[in-house]
Parts: sequence; structure tokens; C-alpha cells
Amino acid sequence: MLDVESVHRPDPVAEAAAVFGTTDPAHPGVAATLARPGPLVGGAVHVLRLPASPPGLGPRLTPAEVRAEAAARGWRTMVGFQTRNPVHRAHEHLTKVALEQVDGLLLHPLVGETKGDDVPAALRMTCYRALLDGYYPPSRVLLSAFPAAMRYAGPREAVCHALVRKNYGCSHFIVGRDHAGVGSYYGTYAAQEAFGAYKPDELGVVPLKFEHAFWCRACGGMATARTCPHPAGARVSLSGTAVRAMLGRGELPPPEFTRPEVARLLADGYRDTRREGST
Amino acid sequence: MLDVESVHRPDPVAEAAAVFGTTDPAHPGVAATLARPGPLVGGAVHVLRLPASPPGLGPRLTPAEVRAEAAARGWRTMVGFQTRNPVHRAHEHLTKVALEQVDGLLLHPLVGETKGDDVPAALRMTCYRALLDGYYPPSRVLLSAFPAAMRYAGPREAVCHALVRKNYGCSHFIVGRDHAGVGSYYGTYAAQEAFGAYKPDELGVVPLKFEHAFWCRACGGMATARTCPHPAGARVSLSGTAVRAMLGRGELPPPEFTRPEVARLLADGYRDTRREGST
Repeated sequence: MLDVESVHRPDPVAEAAAVFGTTDPAHPGVAATLARPGPLVGGAVHVLRLPASPPGLGPRLTPAEVRAEAAARGWRTMVGFQTRNPVHRAHEHLTKVALEQVDGLLLHPLVGETKGDDVPAALRMTCYRALLDGYYPPSRVLLSAFPAAMRYAGPREAVCHALVRKNYGCSHFIVGRDHAGVGSYYGTYAAQEAFGAYKPDELGVVPLKFEHAFWCRACGGMATARTCPHPAGARVSLSGTAVRAMLGRGELPPPEFTRPEVARLLADGYRDTRREGST
Repeated sequence: MLDVESVHRPDPVAEAAAVFGTTDPAHPGVAATLARPGPLVGGAVHVLRLPASPPGLGPRLTPAEVRAEAAARGWRTMVGFQTRNPVHRAHEHLTKVALEQVDGLLLHPLVGETKGDDVPAALRMTCYRALLDGYYPPSRVLLSAFPAAMRYAGPREAVCHALVRKNYGCSHFIVGRDHAGVGSYYGTYAAQEAFGAYKPDELGVVPLKFEHAFWCRACGGMATARTCPHPAGARVSLSGTAVRAMLGRGELPPPEFTRPEVARLLADGYRDTRREGST
């Protein structure tokens, strides 16, 4: 329920330029902003009852609930990981590197609206559970759906994602390459550099900046360009497009890329989607 | 050259208790303190010429030289790693986890006096070079011998090691389990906890505290108890004693434990030592 205190007639073009750094209507965030009907109303919001979590998405803890759970587990520090994709070994590597120094991990997948080619949220949640069950100490991870839409605003959205996770109790937040980016609107490191505009204590949440991770055959382990001296040919690296093509053909990505438990769930999900599509 | 400004008659027993937390003469640091002849003289030290580095130990950069090299490489942050042992994959894991967040690594092996069963310094330096050549990006590591004796003072020596590395320009310092410990005089985490006595900015160097690392067959990678949920049976873990026994029998430790290039150097070194011992 909203107490209407102000009415605002937006300037969608100026808003798009400020938020997205572009007014190109091919940018999905710009398109959504331009398509949004005005005027906008503002005022105090009264929550009567939170909407129920959609089926298959598992717990969707409030910020207060996440903070309480982290405190109950004795975590003095917690790192948030935003994702809208299945967690492959590359992402597992980043979160586990973070867990070496931080007490707990909030795996906080965005389950609101995303681009059409992203993996459906319910299938992703099943994959996350399989990954956590098989490869993480249960006492150190918390899985909760993050109800929000992707805006694909790159740097500005990365800072927003970090601040929202601070509200959930996170002391640290993982910022990867091209965080919340789309197409080639933002530089690979623009989101990481955006945090440089703030003094260390200004945001109240520490960004942990990571490079792209991969399995390196010569290292015999997960690595990034920060730790591995070997040539690209030694590295197992697949694009999201390549992985989707493999799954579409019923092939599993290699275990160096995706945990087998997760790969099987993704392959089954893809098969079911195609079957539904053909009926 | 020393300007003698004071002469001090030490109380070795009180000193041992204060530094080592014990006066047990079976403790090697206590024994050295008790055996040290008094009186002690103090005053300004004038360095005419640094002693030459012993053969086979490679560069022994001064603090100013390390700082200059780090600045020339553009490192804004540098993590120091103290070691008196060959670097196995466990230690490689810790330093590489640190390198994900810190710009450069100062691999700073102590080459002064250690316990008799430690691997000779010249052989260790050869192993370090083989490890760095094969498995680290050269632009991100700096190897320099650290001329100091081990005191085995556990927590107090860990803080001392960190402060000395701060003088070398390190912003971070790796503190493992039982750092600078010997026997069972100090708790496994006593050295890490010792840093808790100081406010975050008081020491001017950030301790990075790590658990014991291991290869986990179920994870298919390096891990620690902070990141791996699997039982001990899945983990490749060998004691220093077990590794020495293997090398003594001419066996190589498994590649999940020690890089093959390092294992071969250690095995050759052990064979040569035994040959010398038998002549």
C-alpha cells in the first residue's frame, strides 16, 4: 500500500542516459525504461503481506532473516554472490577463494526478470542446491533467492547490487568481470572500477574483484590470469553460447567446466524445455 | 660497527618466558636463549658493507630493494610468504588464493639457522625457482632470501615476521596454522589469534589467516576445511615426516601433494645428501 506523496513525470531518455550510460533502445534496460508508462508516484510503502515465493524457487529470506541466520551461525563476515546463471566451476572458484577469508557465503541468485536466453530460475535453483549439497560445507553457505529484475546497467548496477547485499548483512560482495553487463556497452572492468569512486568505508561493503576463472590443465586446477602462467591452449574455457549448444545437443560440459551433478540437471532441463516447445 | 652505548646483563630465563611462553630447555628457542653468553651490548649500528649472500641462495634483496622492485612493477599491494620448507601444493594454494586479491607475492624464505631436520636452504631455493618458473606468472612474484634465524616463538614470532615483512613493503602477510611453532608448545591457531590483540591499523600489515590446504579427490582440486565438505579419506594429506620418509626411499610424493618438478629436485637432493653422508 502506498501513501501517494508526490507524482513525478519522468524523462525516460535522461534517466536512461544517467543509469545506463546510453540511450540505445537495443539495450534491454534502456528499452524497459523507455517503455515504462508515466507518471510515477512516490511515497511511504506499507507492506501488508509479502507476496508468496513462486513455486520451485525455495527460500526467499528477507534481509532481517538473512542477518539473523548469519548471526546464529556465528559469521562475523559474509560475502554475497549475485548470479543469474548456473554456477559453473569458475564461479565456485571465486566463492571458495572468498570463503578462505570470509566466514560465510550468501549465494543470492537473482530470480526476477532476466533476458530471455537466461536459464529459468527454478532450474537454476535446483542446480545451486546440487552444487551446494555436493561441494560446500553446509555450515558456511546460505542459499536464498533474490527477488529483483536485472537492469543490465553494468557499473551502476554492480554498486547497487553490493549496497542491497549490505542491507542483507554482507560485509563483502563479489564483483566479477563485466558484472551486470550486456552486449558491449560496458568495459570488462568498468563495474570493478566503479567501486574505486568510493572511499574504503563509504559503501560499507568490501568489493572482492575477480578475474575470469578456468580449469588449467598445466596447473592441474582452477586458476585465473592472476595465478596461472600457461597459454590459452592449456585452459578449459567455454562461452555461455558454447555450453548452451552442447546442452542443446544432449552433451554434458566437461567436469573441469561444470560439476557433473549440475551438468546433468541442466541437460535434463534443456531436454524438457525442447519437449514442451515441440508439443 | 657498533657504537657501544649500553651494556646489558640479560636474564635468559625471564627472557625465554616472555618470548617463548615457556622455559623448557627442550624448546630450541629457549635452548638458544639460555646458551647465549652475556653480557649484551647495545648502540647504533653502522653498516660498512653487507655480507655477501652465501652461494646458492640467489638474490637477498634489502627492504629498500624489494620496495623499489614492487613499485617498478606497479604493485599497490604485496603479500609476504614466510617459509622454511619446500613449497608444496598446499602452500602454493594459499599464496595463489592471496594473489586473487593482492597484486604481488614476495616469496621470502628464511635462509638462516633452522632446525637440523629442515631441508637445506640452497636445495629449497632451487625448488622455489622450479615452482615459480612452472606455475606462477613471473610478473606477479618476487623471490628473495630472508636472512634470519628461526626462533620457534610461535605467536610472537608470527607478529615479528609480519612486521619485518611490512618493512619490506608488504601490505599483507600469510599466517598459516602453527606459524613458527615447534613441538606442541603453541595452539594450532595461537599465531593467528595473536593478531587479534591489535586494532586493524595498528600493525600496518594485514594478516591473511589460512587453514591447512590439501588436494581433495571429491572436489577434484585444492581445498581447505573452509571450502570442502568431504571426509578425510577423500583428502591427500601427508605429514612432513611421511614426505621425508618417501624421499628417503627414493619415492616421489604424489603430484596432488608436490609439483613433480619440485618432487624430483627434493628426491635428488636427498639422494645426494645420503651419498655424502656415507662417504
